[in-house]
Amino acid sequence: MVNITLPDGSIKSFEGATSPIEVAKSISEGLARNVISAKFNDTIVETTTPLTTDGALTLYTWNDDEGKKAFWHSSAHILAQAIESLYPDAKLWVGPAIENGFYYDIDLGDDVISEKDFKRIEDKMLEIARGKHDFNMRSVSKEEALTYYKGKNDYKVDLIENLEDGTITFCDHDTFTDLCRGGHIPNTGIVKAVKILSVAGAYWKGNENNKQLTRVYGISFPKQKELTQYLELLEEAKKRDHRKLGKELELFTFSQKVGQGLPLWLPKGAALRERLESFLKTAQKKAGYEMVVTPHIGQKELYVTSGHYAKYGEDSFQPIHTPKEGEEFLLKPMNCPHHCEIYNNSQWSYKDLPKRYAEFGTVYRYEQSGELHGLTRVRGFTQDDAHIFCTPDQLDKEFKDVIDLVLYVFGSLGFENFTAQVSLRDPENPDKYIGSLENWEKAEQAIISAAKDKNLNYVIETGEAAFYGPKLDFMVKDALGRQWQLGTIQVDYNLPERFDLTYKGSDNELHRPVMIHRAPFGSMERFIAILLEHTGGNFPLWLMPEQVIVLSISEKYEKYAKKVLNLLENNEIRALIDNRNETMGKKIREAEMKKIPYMIIVGENEEQEDKVSVRQHGGEDLGMISVQEFTNIVNEEVKKSLKQF
Amino acid sequence: MVNITLPDGSIKSFEGATSPIEVAKSISEGLARNVISAKFNDTIVETTTPLTTDGALTLYTWNDDEGKKAFWHSSAHILAQAIESLYPDAKLWVGPAIENGFYYDIDLGDDVISEKDFKRIEDKMLEIARGKHDFNMRSVSKEEALTYYKGKNDYKVDLIENLEDGTITFCDHDTFTDLCRGGHIPNTGIVKAVKILSVAGAYWKGNENNKQLTRVYGISFPKQKELTQYLELLEEAKKRDHRKLGKELELFTFSQKVGQGLPLWLPKGAALRERLESFLKTAQKKAGYEMVVTPHIGQKELYVTSGHYAKYGEDSFQPIHTPKEGEEFLLKPMNCPHHCEIYNNSQWSYKDLPKRYAEFGTVYRYEQSGELHGLTRVRGFTQDDAHIFCTPDQLDKEFKDVIDLVLYVFGSLGFENFTAQVSLRDPENPDKYIGSLENWEKAEQAIISAAKDKNLNYVIETGEAAFYGPKLDFMVKDALGRQWQLGTIQVDYNLPERFDLTYKGSDNELHRPVMIHRAPFGSMERFIAILLEHTGGNFPLWLMPEQVIVLSISEKYEKYAKKVLNLLENNEIRALIDNRNETMGKKIREAEMKKIPYMIIVGENEEQEDKVSVRQHGGEDLGMISVQEFTNIVNEEVKKSLKQF
Repeated sequence: MVNITLPDGSIKSFEGATSPIEVAKSISEGLARNVISAKFNDTIVETTTPLTTDGALTLYTWNDDEGKKAFWHSSAHILAQAIESLYPDAKLWVGPAIENGFYYDIDLGDDVISEKDFKRIEDKMLEIARGKHDFNMRSVSKEEALTYYKGKNDYKVDLIENLEDGTITFCDHDTFTDLCRGGHIPNTGIVKAVKILSVAGAYWKGNENNKQLTRVYGISFPKQKELTQYLELLEEAKKRDHRKLGKELELFTFSQKVGQGLPLWLPKGAALRERLESFLKTAQKKAGYEMVVTPHIGQKELYVTSGHYAKYGEDSFQPIHTPKEGEEFLLKPMNCPHHCEIYNNSQWSYKDLPKRYAEFGTVYRYEQSGELHGLTRVRGFTQDDAHIFCTPDQLDKEFKDVIDLVLYVFGSLGFENFTAQVSLRDPENPDKYIGSLENWEKAEQAIISAAKDKNLNYVIETGEAAFYGPKLDFMVKDALGRQWQLGTIQVDYNLPERFDLTYKGSDNELHRPVMIHRAPFGSMERFIAILLEHTGGNFPLWLMPEQVIVLSISEKYEKYAKKVLNLLENNEIRALIDNRNETMGKKIREAEMKKIPYMIIVGENEEQEDKVSVRQHGGEDLGMISVQEFTNIVNEEVKKSLKQF
Repeated sequence: MVNITLPDGSIKSFEGATSPIEVAKSISEGLARNVISAKFNDTIVETTTPLTTDGALTLYTWNDDEGKKAFWHSSAHILAQAIESLYPDAKLWVGPAIENGFYYDIDLGDDVISEKDFKRIEDKMLEIARGKHDFNMRSVSKEEALTYYKGKNDYKVDLIENLEDGTITFCDHDTFTDLCRGGHIPNTGIVKAVKILSVAGAYWKGNENNKQLTRVYGISFPKQKELTQYLELLEEAKKRDHRKLGKELELFTFSQKVGQGLPLWLPKGAALRERLESFLKTAQKKAGYEMVVTPHIGQKELYVTSGHYAKYGEDSFQPIHTPKEGEEFLLKPMNCPHHCEIYNNSQWSYKDLPKRYAEFGTVYRYEQSGELHGLTRVRGFTQDDAHIFCTPDQLDKEFKDVIDLVLYVFGSLGFENFTAQVSLRDPENPDKYIGSLENWEKAEQAIISAAKDKNLNYVIETGEAAFYGPKLDFMVKDALGRQWQLGTIQVDYNLPERFDLTYKGSDNELHRPVMIHRAPFGSMERFIAILLEHTGGNFPLWLMPEQVIVLSISEKYEKYAKKVLNLLENNEIRALIDNRNETMGKKIREAEMKKIPYMIIVGENEEQEDKVSVRQHGGEDLGMISVQEFTNIVNEEVKKSLKQF
């Protein structure tokens, strides 16, 4: 008897060997149709792999990440076969699945693949797919494997030479064979739609001294519709790329001379940042935070105390020396050590707590230049940082209040789709963690009760806590369905210990406060990037640096246009004017480009009736109304988008 | 005939040799009585020095800096004589005049001077002074000089050994002789009041490997009243020391671990900074500035381009290296190179100019630790920086507008006493300067016309311009009569050249813009220090982070106190509440310590009549009035202190 344990804990028993697909069939025909990959005792197997011992089995469909991985890995085999048949001199190296699709690295000899070849490769792949060829794994000896490739493909020979005899497998489908570790879908027929996305150069083994191979990127789907949707999303993501929008909207730039990964914020971007900062400052003030200001450097000693130097020192921006005095400073990679020193400036009583120190603190962290990307991966960024120092008893309320703040931020910025992840300690490894068991218990309960209390959609990840405290992360889905981690709330027992932070309790003894790190935006740079891609630059009206543009039909109405501008400004609407001697068409096109939410057009009729014609971004015409009516519309929309706190 | 040219250009002729005091007498007896030092052809001379050739003579009285210098230098001689007579084993080294008074460095052997000895030293000095002994200079040969001191004073022997024979002079008065280059008042009798201020250790020749001598600091005056005033001022300055006030008012602190000269702004200080920043931001917005944000580091290359690296690199914080990529960054010592790169991000037309980029930019400059002082000399500070890029034709208006802004800042912060210094190029050294003669002409005329137009009390300093452009500095006198340089406006032809900045002119050709650097506050840190010492912490009401404190007489009136607080807050008055169960005396004392401008006291009467009792900081009682009346008083005062812009 073979006993198979399923993820829900149920056990299926079989007389003799079975296979994932057999197990699926034993559950339902529908499931069997959809299963495309499986994991047996922590190893990915084929759906047809014989299961001869008791064990735990997970079945995967297209909806699982592992299912997609098997699908795209298998598609790479199909791509390879297509390439071999179209380019007989091609020599394959490796072809893995990636986050979105797959690629294959190929030595094309004298051949070149360019965009015009994509179609025939896709057609060839689909032809193969339609053959519904099974993927079959087989073990081969090292000698067999070497014999198979020797003289035909030195890349595969090199791969095999580094493998251990007895562990080598080949995968066959149709007329094609590849050296492969496994993890395929049942047959090629499941692949219904393929797209070659791009080609790029890639050095063999990633070493630039080696030959450059051709990397062919592709993606595939079980339905044509899914491919269409994916390509639309890709198109939309391109349009919304924050680097593109940042340029178009004149928000930020980079300078070779200043350095990579160090954004320069242009006036409109700086104004946007300032609005976001002031939005959060106002809420934080209400929530009892106090702003502080600390320098962007600190002595090495500070980070030795905090423990950051031992952990990150070598891989960071290197120390700054002073010319004569032998001092060593570091660019600050985080604000917490500075805030601990501010806390330590006074002796606090339990009556003074919590202290909530907030700072828009710019920090610098070294990233390899190859890793840099627009505003999402930079070398200098400003955190909307705050540290709450409280008694263990206050943790519960403080945690809830921070969640409220984060939800207010998400709500006011149009992020409505999110989940939370609560990371707790591994109860079986108590020695891994700093802080008393009692305090951990208290903190974990505080987080879970806060998550429940605030009706968060949350999952608990046991063993995922940092050694210094449990935490809660928000995972936010943007308008294109991409996930971003935003708004971590982290409990910390470590820094209070390392900086010897104390408060005098009601018992007149000294106690350790608990610390909470939190940053609803995370960093201004990354947040603005995500917000740009989420909204496509059409921010909520309250945030728009320029809410209205007044366009005069001709110079004759310049004066009236200015009067309207003044009225708007008096009503605290951020407006600008375009009185240039240009056609209305051009003025409107440019205002559309700038994504200004409202265009106000003034000419003869408007002046005579003391009204304005209003056009919304995107084209909707609101007709001719009074400035007062227009102001009401704007105020209403601002009120709707900016949540209550 | 000896012809003596006086500073006003007039010439006095004498038959044969004369002396400064004779020249003074020839002008008026009154002048002769007051002359205490003189300069002949750029050399400081005694008032009795024979003038045997034609030349230019300046006569100095106590009211001149040079007069004070001679007075204090001469007083150091008197101090030395007093020390020798009271401490027979004392060996003198050197004793110069300093900014306020003088000192003498002395090897006291086994003796010690402490505060209890000050009186008898002062008495001895006054005794000598009353003797009205003339100061007489005489030349001595090196041999004579060495013989005089040999065996008696090795410090003087060492000094003499480094002098050239033929240049050595001694000064005698009474029974005392000192090696001395000259520059004395006529006789000791002019010194009417002396005060020994302190003693400190000082290494011989400033080298810490040498013996430590005793440095005795003193000051002296021609009138007792002046000494009294000076000591009062000193006492007041101590009370107003911004380091003391900063601690008392909980504005800022320093941390050993973060590093010297790197202030940490506590919540109240950060709030003060933010108010100042927002005050300036509002004015700058009106004046057409745009805020930008730039990183705190830049590649070395950036500062090589700007020329700063060649000039300051070696003496600055040393470069920051990246772990693997061999890049070199510098902490930014100024914001201008970053702003030039922002300007360079677009191609501008003359129609787009001026561009006015403003940033509260934190910069880092290395200072030796011994030079650091509170907030006035720090290693990291935030400039209220802006750079205006304009056409040469726009310079005139831009310069005037900047002066308006600076005057608005001074006016709103209570600095009413200031002069301006206009630094122009040396027309005889045109090669020293960058930029065309025509542009310099234009810029200098723009500055002078702006200074005239704005009714500034200004002096012109020819040859004092930087090589890259003329400038205007404001010299501000604080409440204690001390001068501070605040608010430089600097024209710059250099950086536009070095960064190859251009704009397209109406002729469709590329032209160089002119740049103006300006910072009304200078740095937030230094400005707040000066403001603290100028106001003693009693800032203008509009700036006070806490304008009003509501004090409840007992817990019974807590609710009414909160109602009052709410009313005030609704009227945008920054108020806090003290509802602690403490005596009213203690609450008032603490509010006085915090320098809160208004205390509102609420108890039974106040609640019954729906009024508040108001007490001003310092003690004045404004009686019982309604909250509305009180609000009017506050608004009136804010309006009075915050100027119009």
